[in-house]
Amino acid sequence: MSHANTLGQAAQTSAPLRLDALETPCLILDADRMERNIARLRDRLAPLGVALRPHLKTAKSVEVARHVMSSPQGPATVSTLKEAEFFAAAGVRDIIYAVGITPWKLAKVIELRRQGVDLAVVLDTVEQAEAVAAASREAGIAIPVLIEIDCDGHRSGVVPDDAARLVAIGRALIDGGELRGVLTHAGGSYGARGVQALQQAAEQERKSVVDAAAILRGAGLPCPVVSLGSTPTAHHALDLTGVTEVRAGVFVFFDLVMAGIGICQVEDIAISVLATVIGHQREKGWILVDAGWMAMSQDRGTAKQAVNQGYGVVCDIAGHAYPDLIMADANQEHGIITLRPGSQGTLPDLAIGDRLRILPNHACATGAQHRQYNVVHGESDVVTGQWQRFGGW
Amino acid sequence: MSHANTLGQAAQTSAPLRLDALETPCLILDADRMERNIARLRDRLAPLGVALRPHLKTAKSVEVARHVMSSPQGPATVSTLKEAEFFAAAGVRDIIYAVGITPWKLAKVIELRRQGVDLAVVLDTVEQAEAVAAASREAGIAIPVLIEIDCDGHRSGVVPDDAARLVAIGRALIDGGELRGVLTHAGGSYGARGVQALQQAAEQERKSVVDAAAILRGAGLPCPVVSLGSTPTAHHALDLTGVTEVRAGVFVFFDLVMAGIGICQVEDIAISVLATVIGHQREKGWILVDAGWMAMSQDRGTAKQAVNQGYGVVCDIAGHAYPDLIMADANQEHGIITLRPGSQGTLPDLAIGDRLRILPNHACATGAQHRQYNVVHGESDVVTGQWQRFGGW
Repeated sequence: MSHANTLGQAAQTSAPLRLDALETPCLILDADRMERNIARLRDRLAPLGVALRPHLKTAKSVEVARHVMSSPQGPATVSTLKEAEFFAAAGVRDIIYAVGITPWKLAKVIELRRQGVDLAVVLDTVEQAEAVAAASREAGIAIPVLIEIDCDGHRSGVVPDDAARLVAIGRALIDGGELRGVLTHAGGSYGARGVQALQQAAEQERKSVVDAAAILRGAGLPCPVVSLGSTPTAHHALDLTGVTEVRAGVFVFFDLVMAGIGICQVEDIAISVLATVIGHQREKGWILVDAGWMAMSQDRGTAKQAVNQGYGVVCDIAGHAYPDLIMADANQEHGIITLRPGSQGTLPDLAIGDRLRILPNHACATGAQHRQYNVVHGESDVVTGQWQRFGGW
Repeated sequence: MSHANTLGQAAQTSAPLRLDALETPCLILDADRMERNIARLRDRLAPLGVALRPHLKTAKSVEVARHVMSSPQGPATVSTLKEAEFFAAAGVRDIIYAVGITPWKLAKVIELRRQGVDLAVVLDTVEQAEAVAAASREAGIAIPVLIEIDCDGHRSGVVPDDAARLVAIGRALIDGGELRGVLTHAGGSYGARGVQALQQAAEQERKSVVDAAAILRGAGLPCPVVSLGSTPTAHHALDLTGVTEVRAGVFVFFDLVMAGIGICQVEDIAISVLATVIGHQREKGWILVDAGWMAMSQDRGTAKQAVNQGYGVVCDIAGHAYPDLIMADANQEHGIITLRPGSQGTLPDLAIGDRLRILPNHACATGAQHRQYNVVHGESDVVTGQWQRFGGW
């Protein structure tokens, strides 16, 4: 849209853009909810004495990043080198690229470090550490490394008691690289149920990196950074002794999966997809909208939870959820909205052309389907900004 | 990438770009397989005497569209007005926008028609028809309409024997609009199993639009176009008497869902995601790659089929599938590759930095995660073109 980026100013001098003038489907961000979500995690972490290094893979936007980072220079976490390049170009100077590095990506890491970005990489093998040390020597630039720790078996990393592998990786970095610390992510916490299980997942996450750091230090190796994080554990850790920083991303927006785990309420979810009613199948109790899986993503993360939210929870244009109304099915550009199975409720009376907002299962996945946040504040229908998102690699 | 768009020429005069020089993850299109897939459907439809109106929602690329359309002017089908605008700008002049229209979208339809694009819309209510007629009168431009028919209950449309509704819609268009015909899509055929069930789905699809056309004509209304289509039914229809055109999209690339239904072989699938090995969890039999659900999409369409392919089937860099090797799980930027449950096979010996190609469950969904096709031909590793894709609304 032509007013993108300049809307913040334009809105002051001409008629404001309103939700009912947006083309649908599009992505809506309630900045008031976002600010509350960010404040909530900051308030939680402050007494625990750790820094927040937000994961920007959820936001993929300079404006959102500036709201969530503690300074315009960072610190930040990213999941792709494109994110690193994009945020570096916007002035971020302290970044961890938190997906295991491959040797051919090191040239780009070195390029960013030459530009003054303190970009660190993550790895879990001696082979990768040797490649980092060799590339560092060749460039005359020490690439900082965090050794990935596998705290719960859900993905990559060194198990925290594999002292031989940890020390071998650390030593492989000595001649050229820089061992900066250890890092883990409790991805398994997404499957935890109940406060106690979440507190246990948080403590297991903490213990894994603190133990690994002790092994490295015991072998005479440096380990200044002890990094962990996931939105569920960040909101449930009771003690973060020995930890230097927490990483989390989804907490900024929240989503139905987080609500299903109990990390937030549905009313806290800050992003939604604006859709228009395009038809009915009245005898089936279906309302059809112009947002399908292309707009919502195909994330069905709540299907494994106690309450299956289909492709999303349906709200009115002000963002209030209709009781029991979900997007039960979706095609590429069609969404089928209906009452939850077993509901005693009634369908809202919606005409063709009426607008709805759909809350997503997974903020990272739904956000990725869009190139712009349309920013609103609470119940106001005025769009106060249009913030660009980026995608790709 | 800087060589995008000009590579076709550049490759002639300098060293060719090869698969192992691409940044990963990225989308690969085997143009040889694509050409065979296109020829196969054309050869099938020719003796049935119907035109092909390809659905470009799968391709979202001018270059692919030009390979699949019968002329640079079309005909074509689209699922969003952005697709209509994009392909119109590239010279396509005969387009059906095949998602139910809402009144506020009509201004854009009229704008495209004013530019000389024969853009038709789809609807299934009298209310929409009245809005189209009113907008047509106001603009002095008759908007052509296809009435959507519900052939199998899977989504929107008028049931084919609801004569009263069909005729009422047709009559509502008389004063200003243009009733061009009827249209259906056998989306239910994706759940059909076996040749006989697919042939029945095709005949049910045909009968639904032919019956609806007869009702309209019997009421003295025009119905020149009788349009149907889905990739499974297009490949199984034995008789298309009374049908004027077939629409299909996925047939260009095919995917694992289509292979699971039996419409193609895994070896026919023309698109894949190139990924790099970033790690191992050897004791678990896992290989980790830098393509997660962001690169593959979260489509799990084969999970409901006889063979669950996880997030995709893993091939070597030349596109040959490894026996029983699938992407069993995925995070945003991590894929976990392992042998299919119960496999007696062995993991290939892959080192960090090695490259793989992953075949997708659903071509439309995986394609949408990327902004470019890297074009190869069969087993050659030379990238002969980089074709831009678009997304959004």
